[in-house]
Amino acid sequence: MQIAIVLFDRFTALDAVGPYEMLSGVPGAETFFVAERTGAVRNDRGSLRLVAERSLGEVPAPDVVIVPGGPGQSARMEDGALLDWLRAADATSTWTASVCTGSLLLAAAGLLTGRRATSHWLALGTLERYGAEPTGERVVFDGKYVTAAGVSAGIDMGLTLLGRIAGDDRARTVQLLTEYDPRPPYDAGSPEKAPAALVEECRARSRFILT
Amino acid sequence: MQIAIVLFDRFTALDAVGPYEMLSGVPGAETFFVAERTGAVRNDRGSLRLVAERSLGEVPAPDVVIVPGGPGQSARMEDGALLDWLRAADATSTWTASVCTGSLLLAAAGLLTGRRATSHWLALGTLERYGAEPTGERVVFDGKYVTAAGVSAGIDMGLTLLGRIAGDDRARTVQLLTEYDPRPPYDAGSPEKAPAALVEECRARSRFILT
Repeated sequence: MQIAIVLFDRFTALDAVGPYEMLSGVPGAETFFVAERTGAVRNDRGSLRLVAERSLGEVPAPDVVIVPGGPGQSARMEDGALLDWLRAADATSTWTASVCTGSLLLAAAGLLTGRRATSHWLALGTLERYGAEPTGERVVFDGKYVTAAGVSAGIDMGLTLLGRIAGDDRARTVQLLTEYDPRPPYDAGSPEKAPAALVEECRARSRFILT
Repeated sequence: MQIAIVLFDRFTALDAVGPYEMLSGVPGAETFFVAERTGAVRNDRGSLRLVAERSLGEVPAPDVVIVPGGPGQSARMEDGALLDWLRAADATSTWTASVCTGSLLLAAAGLLTGRRATSHWLALGTLERYGAEPTGERVVFDGKYVTAAGVSAGIDMGLTLLGRIAGDDRARTVQLLTEYDPRPPYDAGSPEKAPAALVEECRARSRFILT
């Protein structure tokens, strides 16, 4: 089994590494990072580089495709090479998944039309404009399509998907070994829970990013 | 402000990237990965490489030091260059922090002697043998020393530390933007919660790793 995590310039690191950490130990599976070209790919902050070990062309038919998000997504909504690859990979994948605004790329490739899906809370409107049916859930399964909400939701998505792929006991073991018993020090992880002023500030700033 | 995250061969990716994602946007701070030599550093699974942008020698006095864990830690408990660097950096740091078995490296450098600290649940005995006073908490502050439990606990540590460095509102904004409102699909994230058989299996396997 091949699990391919797609990288692109200005991706969000935790979007990619969260599901990677959950899924990379699947027995018999090979997990790798893939990008248009092999080599180091820089994240949204500019201070982290993760190496894409294979090019898209070298991996025509992975079993699992995972697309992270990040501000770099917006420049790729008409990226023929990436969207063509996503469509071709999806034709034979067992699971096609995304984290955060990665779902916008799946939607732009036409893969989420009419499907229940999610994205970063700031991107749900855009997701709808690209033909999906956004939900407020953290992890959404619709057939073989699995989408996660913003950034850290990729961990929950990865662990849930691991359970489907390798069984509940394997997933529980990974949860135990990664000590995934979260205790956020604040309770501001969703627009419903965060102070209204912070939510508004984020919305105002995002108008320049998400269009 | 300089925030240096230390990489070494066979580190655990999420240990490093969790706190990175929380802390890398601190206004006025520069966050980077550092290792004995610059260049790509391979993780514990062998399938991920993260680039160390600077060498230890180039960063003599960061304000914040973060040491991730991972199986590669055990080969570095007598690594003179790394432990010397940790001691020197700690002499002027504002915060000295670790995730998972990274605390064993801080302890081996003599920095946690007599201090309350934590580590991966499988490493608490080793942490004690190196002179620290292990606690079962997920994130432990003792003066300027901040230690986190296994792997994913680095996210909680990073967010808590962000609050101390940049204020509660900044931390809440990062929590909101990373949608850190976790919903693990299982409840097996600690040895108290996981099925006893899985806990025993992990303990048995770990005897070969943690000594």
